[in-house]
Amino acid sequence: MNRISDATITRLSRYYRSLVHLETQGQEMVSSKELAKRHKVTPAQVRKDLSCFGQFGTRGLGYSVCQLKETIAHILGLHRIWKVALVGAGSLGSALISYKEFKRQGFHIVAVFDNDPHKVGKKRRGLTISDITKLPKIVKELDINLAVVAVPTTAAQSVVDILVKAGLKMILNFAPETLKTPPGVTIRNVNMAIELEALSYRLVASEMSRLDGKPKLSSI
Amino acid sequence: MNRISDATITRLSRYYRSLVHLETQGQEMVSSKELAKRHKVTPAQVRKDLSCFGQFGTRGLGYSVCQLKETIAHILGLHRIWKVALVGAGSLGSALISYKEFKRQGFHIVAVFDNDPHKVGKKRRGLTISDITKLPKIVKELDINLAVVAVPTTAAQSVVDILVKAGLKMILNFAPETLKTPPGVTIRNVNMAIELEALSYRLVASEMSRLDGKPKLSSI
Repeated sequence: MNRISDATITRLSRYYRSLVHLETQGQEMVSSKELAKRHKVTPAQVRKDLSCFGQFGTRGLGYSVCQLKETIAHILGLHRIWKVALVGAGSLGSALISYKEFKRQGFHIVAVFDNDPHKVGKKRRGLTISDITKLPKIVKELDINLAVVAVPTTAAQSVVDILVKAGLKMILNFAPETLKTPPGVTIRNVNMAIELEALSYRLVASEMSRLDGKPKLSSI
Repeated sequence: MNRISDATITRLSRYYRSLVHLETQGQEMVSSKELAKRHKVTPAQVRKDLSCFGQFGTRGLGYSVCQLKETIAHILGLHRIWKVALVGAGSLGSALISYKEFKRQGFHIVAVFDNDPHKVGKKRRGLTISDITKLPKIVKELDINLAVVAVPTTAAQSVVDILVKAGLKMILNFAPETLKTPPGVTIRNVNMAIELEALSYRLVASEMSRLDGKPKLSSI
């Protein structure tokens, strides 16, 4: 398998969503041009992204929606089940446990950790919250593949250090903080705070332009 | 105000986090070099980003941590309070209502909407869930600034269409779907699904390379 960039993987995820949608609409074939238009990239980019994983399309006909969808699902491991350790049993963590989309994508939370003695031992949707010090042992016992970090910003780096020491190589981080990881560990960030700040900036900018009587900046 | 790119705004958000951290550590001055190193960009990029909003730094001394932090907070509207309409009172929506980070950043959820007759009229953390058909009226009455979409993928586009019709210009979308909005409407996506798929791909790739006896791909 060649080295595939994060940007390509993100685009594959997006193509996958379109293919699922097209399939529910009963469309059987799709051209690189149509996929490109939906995702604001060039048809050449679509063909290049897909060619990383072998030949699928037929010149003049395009790609079979069903076949391409299944191939991308396979590449992205979407039919697999991954075992997840959740760190942080606060409001966000609790929501993630019951978040259906999470499970639908094959991410099964099998263990929950916190360092708050008031939470340890209690249950969240059938899972008992364990003390964070037990994480290394439980990760090994349950053969956990990845960890989700849903702790306050101030605790995030120390949690990541514990996860790395426990041998976990994949981390999904919800704390609004750039975290350090050694080479060989992949961390992905779901950055609600940064998205909120971008919206906040646009709100300020659009208010200022309204006051100036200038055109709104919100569509930049 | 000049046109500032989304990428610049995202970097400002990140610099802001570092400055908050440095301030708690008691550091008074910071150089563009130090900020650059923390965020894996060039010092020239940092200076360029900050110069968009006027001159702050002193050659040879760098920037005052406190002053730069406050200036960025002002630019990003972080001291402001924005009124938010939440659409979708499921598990994710309910978590967002009680998500402290959200409120801490000045985003106050003042109305909650759903189309499920079993949910309408019930309360979530003191807020009564209203029927989605009442959204345009309530948005005007409460002078709501932005909307958060936390509904299933299949419903997301129709919700966005309702929001746009109601005159909302800023949307934060949690549904894993590329949504269409007219010019003048800003939509930001919190794409958990896409981050999960990137991790899933890396898990597959690292497993395959383990089977092949090749070096792991997880650090690409």
